[in-house]
Amino acid sequence: MSTTLDPVFEDVASAARRIEPYVRRTPVLSSPELSRLLGASVDFKCENLQAVGAFKARGACNAVLMLDDLHASRGVATHSSGNHAAALSRAARLRGIPAYIVMPRDAPRIKRLAVEDFGGRVQECEPTLAAREAAAAALVAATGATLVHPYDDPQVIAGQGTVLVEMSSQLAPPDVVLVPVGGGGLLAGTALASRRLWPRTRVIGVEPAGADDAARSFHGGDLQPAGAPQTIADGLRGALSARTLRLARAHVDDIVTVGEESIVAAMRLLFEVLKVVVEPSGAVPVAALLEGRIGPGRVAVVLSGGNVDLDALPWVVTRREA
Amino acid sequence: MSTTLDPVFEDVASAARRIEPYVRRTPVLSSPELSRLLGASVDFKCENLQAVGAFKARGACNAVLMLDDLHASRGVATHSSGNHAAALSRAARLRGIPAYIVMPRDAPRIKRLAVEDFGGRVQECEPTLAAREAAAAALVAATGATLVHPYDDPQVIAGQGTVLVEMSSQLAPPDVVLVPVGGGGLLAGTALASRRLWPRTRVIGVEPAGADDAARSFHGGDLQPAGAPQTIADGLRGALSARTLRLARAHVDDIVTVGEESIVAAMRLLFEVLKVVVEPSGAVPVAALLEGRIGPGRVAVVLSGGNVDLDALPWVVTRREA
Repeated sequence: MSTTLDPVFEDVASAARRIEPYVRRTPVLSSPELSRLLGASVDFKCENLQAVGAFKARGACNAVLMLDDLHASRGVATHSSGNHAAALSRAARLRGIPAYIVMPRDAPRIKRLAVEDFGGRVQECEPTLAAREAAAAALVAATGATLVHPYDDPQVIAGQGTVLVEMSSQLAPPDVVLVPVGGGGLLAGTALASRRLWPRTRVIGVEPAGADDAARSFHGGDLQPAGAPQTIADGLRGALSARTLRLARAHVDDIVTVGEESIVAAMRLLFEVLKVVVEPSGAVPVAALLEGRIGPGRVAVVLSGGNVDLDALPWVVTRREA
Repeated sequence: MSTTLDPVFEDVASAARRIEPYVRRTPVLSSPELSRLLGASVDFKCENLQAVGAFKARGACNAVLMLDDLHASRGVATHSSGNHAAALSRAARLRGIPAYIVMPRDAPRIKRLAVEDFGGRVQECEPTLAAREAAAAALVAATGATLVHPYDDPQVIAGQGTVLVEMSSQLAPPDVVLVPVGGGGLLAGTALASRRLWPRTRVIGVEPAGADDAARSFHGGDLQPAGAPQTIADGLRGALSARTLRLARAHVDDIVTVGEESIVAAMRLLFEVLKVVVEPSGAVPVAALLEGRIGPGRVAVVLSGGNVDLDALPWVVTRREA
């Protein structure tokens, strides 16, 4: 497959075989109490329990394993709000090559530490997409490293889609699968796989209303810019690319938005009832259930990540400010 | 089996068959990062993901299912710091009978709400063992309900031992299995099952130094009173009974104690790296690993429960007081 072509289902299927020794088969959890509270029968695919605490381990592994030896030897580079950076650092270490990481200055401390733990070399930048892209381009020019974009990359998208391949062996086809949307890599990969493996399942992306570029792009005519995203869900502040928008238009049924209060409430509910640690981005699909946006039936939710600063849990901050 | 006899392995095995439709088969999780940090290869049996958020669902189910119809119709009663109370309420509801619950005034809010959610009828008492026992005795006299003690009960002990039966089908025999110790029901049941199913595995109980009656009783001559336990681990403030001490002496290799700071650090580590929510009692065995009390090798840890007040996580409280 050329890296300039959009990925297809077969790329997801071969990614699943390729990365299988290097990622965790994460469990699917459920709780009758939580299903009752959410008004649907919900199964949670726990990618917060994935290596590096997020599904990003999948796409990064696939991209790094697909490099030829010459390119691999020069290393990989990326810009990322955090989880992709840790994932790429880990994948590079597995292959014994360097990883150069551009991170926004305001990335959560826990995410920066994770990158450094995996041997990634961090360079800080301003927290805007333009600053991130410029710094990454300069790094690539200086080192000859291959840029592995957090989501606008066919191998990364194919890797993220392996979440659904795994789910399809753990669950009967649900009525709906819910996935958070930032740059759209997880949504595009998941939708590609779902269309083949769960053809009757609706695929719905969920996005914070304060970072709703994907919903605007999906429902409008053209690719919309991110603007100035305002959301606690730090992993979802990126904008769709032309590629992820095209894939979403082809394979996704809907993209809905949710409010910040619902995201915090959903996150707390997952801690309190499901007993798992999720980051705000990971709780976003559950916020859609809380807001009654999805309806009853069998729902599969991808809990995308668990990397949250435990000194600044949002309900504690709220209580202090009160 | 008479309720006056100590349980044997066959009671645990039959409890496993009896309760299987009514409890969750909880996953075993591990994390290479966490194993590295703890200096041992550690597998975690996630009873924090059990129904009612704690292993107590097992023993309570077994005890309620073993009642004959006449006794069952009068209901069940108990005194408990919380998880057993929720578990007994749930088991009673499954059988359609009343549950009368005596709870100490200082039990965490989340545990009281859980009892009420399952239809348990709560009566408050002073937070001492004597007050709890007196109030429960009065309730039993008034209602004819059967007292189901949180740990000094052969059926409850047999039920708790099913944790290890399940683990034995999920894991190869480890070098050590670590279990928290409060009243000793989980330790006794687990040890009974381990002796048969994992005969070469050392069984070690772990207890807060501020509530070290079990260690004193185990290593000394006689059953020691709880005294005035001082520990954040609210589930472990009870004292061994003569029965649980006898079973521990017969089947347990050691009981070690850990400090409060280690318990908080272990709890935070489980949130941050394993990405699961555990209550302080559930983190106690991990504190023993953090303190270097166990040594390298393959270690299986029972994460006993996940019911913690998210408004009062101990590291947040510490930071506020600083």
